[in-house]
Amino acid sequence: MSGANVNPQGFERDRPPHLASTPFLDLDLNRFERNIADMQRRADEAGVRLRPHIKTHKSLHLARRQIAVGAVGVTASKPSEALIFVEGGIPSVTLAYPIICSSRIDALLEAAREREVEVRFLIDHHLGLAALAEAGQRHGQPLPVFVKVDVGLGRAGVAPKSSRGVELAVAITDCPGVRFAGLLSHAGHAYGVGNHDEIGKIARAEAADLLSLKAHIEAAGVEVPCLSVGSTPTCLGAPIPAGIDEIRPGNYAVLDRTALRLGLCASDDLALSVVATVVSRNSRYAIIDAGSKALSSDAGPHGTISTGFGVVVSVDKPPDRIWEVEKLSEEHGFVSCDSDDLAIGSRVRIFPNHACATIACFDAFGSDAAGPGNAVDARGRFT
Amino acid sequence: MSGANVNPQGFERDRPPHLASTPFLDLDLNRFERNIADMQRRADEAGVRLRPHIKTHKSLHLARRQIAVGAVGVTASKPSEALIFVEGGIPSVTLAYPIICSSRIDALLEAAREREVEVRFLIDHHLGLAALAEAGQRHGQPLPVFVKVDVGLGRAGVAPKSSRGVELAVAITDCPGVRFAGLLSHAGHAYGVGNHDEIGKIARAEAADLLSLKAHIEAAGVEVPCLSVGSTPTCLGAPIPAGIDEIRPGNYAVLDRTALRLGLCASDDLALSVVATVVSRNSRYAIIDAGSKALSSDAGPHGTISTGFGVVVSVDKPPDRIWEVEKLSEEHGFVSCDSDDLAIGSRVRIFPNHACATIACFDAFGSDAAGPGNAVDARGRFT
Repeated sequence: MSGANVNPQGFERDRPPHLASTPFLDLDLNRFERNIADMQRRADEAGVRLRPHIKTHKSLHLARRQIAVGAVGVTASKPSEALIFVEGGIPSVTLAYPIICSSRIDALLEAAREREVEVRFLIDHHLGLAALAEAGQRHGQPLPVFVKVDVGLGRAGVAPKSSRGVELAVAITDCPGVRFAGLLSHAGHAYGVGNHDEIGKIARAEAADLLSLKAHIEAAGVEVPCLSVGSTPTCLGAPIPAGIDEIRPGNYAVLDRTALRLGLCASDDLALSVVATVVSRNSRYAIIDAGSKALSSDAGPHGTISTGFGVVVSVDKPPDRIWEVEKLSEEHGFVSCDSDDLAIGSRVRIFPNHACATIACFDAFGSDAAGPGNAVDARGRFT
Repeated sequence: MSGANVNPQGFERDRPPHLASTPFLDLDLNRFERNIADMQRRADEAGVRLRPHIKTHKSLHLARRQIAVGAVGVTASKPSEALIFVEGGIPSVTLAYPIICSSRIDALLEAAREREVEVRFLIDHHLGLAALAEAGQRHGQPLPVFVKVDVGLGRAGVAPKSSRGVELAVAITDCPGVRFAGLLSHAGHAYGVGNHDEIGKIARAEAADLLSLKAHIEAAGVEVPCLSVGSTPTCLGAPIPAGIDEIRPGNYAVLDRTALRLGLCASDDLALSVVATVVSRNSRYAIIDAGSKALSSDAGPHGTISTGFGVVVSVDKPPDRIWEVEKLSEEHGFVSCDSDDLAIGSRVRIFPNHACATIACFDAFGSDAAGPGNAVDARGRFT
């Protein structure tokens, strides 16, 4: 993304109070509410359920807002992350991560039973099935289990055209302690493409893969209750294909420089930024007090942006141009700026490459200490 | 760094207990103690004081160990980070970051007065001087203030050959509320070079720059009490030059893949690793449960490694080969492994590119919940 094709005015936001310590996460609640309402409308119009991935904001308060506007539950990455949302009373949590050891979900299953929360799991291997079956039997709760399908990211999941998907679906159906929930995929490779046409192709190919595998599983006598997909590029950048039952995008709630690069949103849709202060200057750079420990060094989801770490605009006057965070030290950002524009003491707003990675660096949204409502509740919950 | 020139056996460590949830930070205390004793010996032999930068481990317990073996104080990055160590009773804390707003250090100065801790500051601009002078007068404590010198990283600091260093030193001396503490630099560009020869050149050039500026300041009638330098490459990879008074390396305490790449240490000096579990497999990758939210996406200090995110060895059997973390998603690492070596369920140990960035992702060392002794006390303290 170059500066030439982005309108700096779109980045304008309300100015934060002057005495706040920087850097801090600035969440624009109006934009967040608009983003979550838009996705809910897309889901409703396509007749699919929305189960947003909360790894993006890791916030109980924001997850409850997503439920309030129509989401039927949330999606989480790890057992300890899911636990926060189960304990917080979210009605249904999909743990979209391969579980291979039953002891890792004991606390989660106990909390889920106590609060009558549904927790759904996935597997891509018989070791996962054995772990979940053992846990389900021990806890006296038959666990809903998806088969994870690799639709092109090359990460977890069975190949859609291999026989393993059918074998696992049959094995789940035949196994005590678990029940077959359907097929689940994440087309994360859509972050790596250049335009809407390619995103649309990926979304259609993903649906075709799942529908084909569903037909094979049904031919083996097993009903497939749900096809679940979800990535922000495919959910925002393409129509939701027929035959899909639910979507699980995450980043759409706040959006970031990656979404902007992919043409998924406009600059005034970006709900998440970091406010920082220029603390030093040299002939090439304005040096800001947000470094890799605040912004993260993420190049984008799955490493998909090749240069820079964020778009920068002025906070103290209406944005009339944009800069880029070119490099990061741990506590310093190097903003390419060889003019006098960004003087020492001036404040900037950074729209990061990857909002999910940036939020995970902070304990709270805003400049106050973490508390109910502003906490990044599940920060650090990666076990 | 390729696999060919690294001895896998050097990465061997004691095996962690089998039931620990992964990923977790594994600190080898024996290696840590050896590393800190080695650096203390280097400092003692060169006749310089050691003030380790605690941004690496952010741990009060580990900082106290560094003090116990001879460090005269510590160095910190931000006021909120420094506060942890002042409140923890470390006798002297250098806040090696440009302060430009006096209200940001009020809590720190109050804590320092209460505990009789010395806190030293730096500036590279008259706005910093004004802020510190105001704070020093208001708190009734004349604050020791260094002039930061940019010796080649191109970040904060006055150019050593400009007149600004002399002007600031004179201005500090003439100003109530502050006193001139000396010159301070960080040769972080040494992370970007290829070998010891170049690191030695940078260390010598840094000392020459500081000594030359010192002579100019003394010619203006101002005594320069201290020349303070510090980066792990220059402190480990070259002799400490004559004329230097103190060193402030940080990473040396634990070391990482960057230090290994620079030839600063052997693989059995690496005290910090992350233990993770293989949760899925495909034809190209073993997928592990440590992603960018645990390892960070850091390519190395100031972005100095271009490929991969860490060296990987097996935990469950003696290491006979090494792999690389090639890519990261938020909660998944992609370990290049097209053989059957890393089966689902097996555990791996990752030596990350940049230990400082990785530690900053975690609340604790080890697999237990954070508590006294194992906490990453200053995690998230970047204001």
